[in-house]
Amino acid sequence: MALDEFESIHHWTAGRQEDEWQRRRGIVAGIGDDAAVVDLAAAADGVAEPKRLLLAVDTMVETVHFKQSTMRDEDVGYKALAANISDIAAMGGVPLHALVSVSVPPAYTPERMRRLYDGLYECAERYGVAIAGGDTTSSPEHLVVAVTVTGTVEAGRELRRSGAKPGDAVFVTGAVGMSAAGLHALLAEEARGAVMASADAGHQELAAVVKAHQRPNPSVRAGRLLLERGSCHSLNDVSDGLASEAWEIAEASGLRLMLHEKRLPRSGSMSTYASSAGVDPLEWMLYGGEDYVLLGTMASEDAEAMQLAFQQEGIPFFIIGETEAGEPDVQLIRYNQASKGSGLLSSNEKRINLKKRGYNHFL
Amino acid sequence: MALDEFESIHHWTAGRQEDEWQRRRGIVAGIGDDAAVVDLAAAADGVAEPKRLLLAVDTMVETVHFKQSTMRDEDVGYKALAANISDIAAMGGVPLHALVSVSVPPAYTPERMRRLYDGLYECAERYGVAIAGGDTTSSPEHLVVAVTVTGTVEAGRELRRSGAKPGDAVFVTGAVGMSAAGLHALLAEEARGAVMASADAGHQELAAVVKAHQRPNPSVRAGRLLLERGSCHSLNDVSDGLASEAWEIAEASGLRLMLHEKRLPRSGSMSTYASSAGVDPLEWMLYGGEDYVLLGTMASEDAEAMQLAFQQEGIPFFIIGETEAGEPDVQLIRYNQASKGSGLLSSNEKRINLKKRGYNHFL
Repeated sequence: MALDEFESIHHWTAGRQEDEWQRRRGIVAGIGDDAAVVDLAAAADGVAEPKRLLLAVDTMVETVHFKQSTMRDEDVGYKALAANISDIAAMGGVPLHALVSVSVPPAYTPERMRRLYDGLYECAERYGVAIAGGDTTSSPEHLVVAVTVTGTVEAGRELRRSGAKPGDAVFVTGAVGMSAAGLHALLAEEARGAVMASADAGHQELAAVVKAHQRPNPSVRAGRLLLERGSCHSLNDVSDGLASEAWEIAEASGLRLMLHEKRLPRSGSMSTYASSAGVDPLEWMLYGGEDYVLLGTMASEDAEAMQLAFQQEGIPFFIIGETEAGEPDVQLIRYNQASKGSGLLSSNEKRINLKKRGYNHFL
Repeated sequence: MALDEFESIHHWTAGRQEDEWQRRRGIVAGIGDDAAVVDLAAAADGVAEPKRLLLAVDTMVETVHFKQSTMRDEDVGYKALAANISDIAAMGGVPLHALVSVSVPPAYTPERMRRLYDGLYECAERYGVAIAGGDTTSSPEHLVVAVTVTGTVEAGRELRRSGAKPGDAVFVTGAVGMSAAGLHALLAEEARGAVMASADAGHQELAAVVKAHQRPNPSVRAGRLLLERGSCHSLNDVSDGLASEAWEIAEASGLRLMLHEKRLPRSGSMSTYASSAGVDPLEWMLYGGEDYVLLGTMASEDAEAMQLAFQQEGIPFFIIGETEAGEPDVQLIRYNQASKGSGLLSSNEKRINLKKRGYNHFL
């Protein structure tokens, strides 16, 4: 590679996280040897013994997941880690460490890479994740960032996709479609030849959806709350879109999920932006992805108590449907517009089978 | 991406490693949820309690680390994992799990990816590594494989780069320059327009160096032996070349390493190939890299016993130099040709400062 690997990594990582801060995450030896050395028992992660280790990897590829018109370099770094932390959140775990593989094309100057690491460390600090190691290679043309995260979880209490039971309530821990709306806004700006729409500038609604796309927040606290209360049956994070994630629970648990269109949480800023753009936001909400809220199921009799627990922590919690026995399937229940207020909902509802497909960024 | 991610991953990974086999590596839940769940205490890894977790990541990029004329698809999979396992070996640890991120360009058909995974699983089986998870994305043009490995090691006994002491003997656990010779042979074949030189065909010497390049063997057993005997002071694996790895020990430990040219182990097949190609192999041996033997230091009085222990296990062990107090530096000691047999070695030796630079595959 053009840069000296060791000097580069040193420039991007040195002094970012203090030794003592890393030690509290169990790091005995971090960046600078063949492998990081971790003492999990020494991690002050709040997870009760015996605990288990969680491992996940996620990759962001330039032109596939982002391009310069949609994400600043610091956003790429932030989001690459955030997407991974979300996988730990979706198990009910506490994220602890990350290893960062970057393949750097010539267009990414050391200064740009420094900004990418600025974003990465910003996310790491917010979620208490120690950067424990990495690998830097050159790349012929496109940036590739692959992040591996570890986490911990109480043994036997990890929240899987496969635990849903017939008659469960289906819930989601935040609005969906925000990120897709943000991407739509960014691509529209690009098509108009404008400078990148920024989360800091422009209309408030635009700023909110753009921020949701560029700086998503994984739902670690929500995942812990679900695990701690003990009543959650199945859990997934909305990385590939609500329909796709619901399908994963349906297939892993062997049942049907029914989602009610009118109960899907939509944010005001997304709705406002959708109106101004003349777009029906349902597509974003079902297939948009990258919202990193949690989707799961629990016995319906426990749902109200959970809603209260979330309310007390200031985290959204919406019951959006229910499960029933049957072949794996995901259905959306819509109501005829004409029947509004007639009170005869059941005769006017229409079930639509949702497709498994996930998120295609630029197709 | 063009392929359905879940179907692809299923096609490449399903049924490759039995549940019971994975359980013996501590896997509670592997591929198929947001994160893999691992019970380290349940891993039958032979590592004494309390044990620590090791984490490392390594990346292979098409056109940077390999191209179709130098590596078959199954070699790419094998070597991507082998390079990572080597990082665990270099800490004295036992490799346990791997997570595989692949970014797949259109040229890689599902059949080619299947072959890549064939090689990956072949390496995994040989070294007892459970494939615990992964991420598959599309890539615009070039294949990128980033593998993260975990391992375990007895707490406090991990072999770092930083433990070398003045007066140590410097050792290496196998021949160096083999992989670079193999790459040279492969590129020479390509320049002649020949079909890829294969480890299975052609002259025996050629086959040996090509195999060393395409199917390197990380030194897990050597690392364990060094750790178990307790006398190893510092350790590194030869991934970027002997000079570069020696520099890492010199800088991490704060001393000088002196390597004797005539003691550097050279394999017969490499020497034969070098003669036939009209090349001085010293460049390959010092800067070639990817041999994945181990380079380290230990008190010179313990070296003989270690050599015997290695002999009993059938693993090579060569004393190639010594350390001395001083600013971090790596020197090669050469002897004038004219002085051969004169007995007056000290007056005819010449010290050459070795550069830090590592391995440039195709530059």
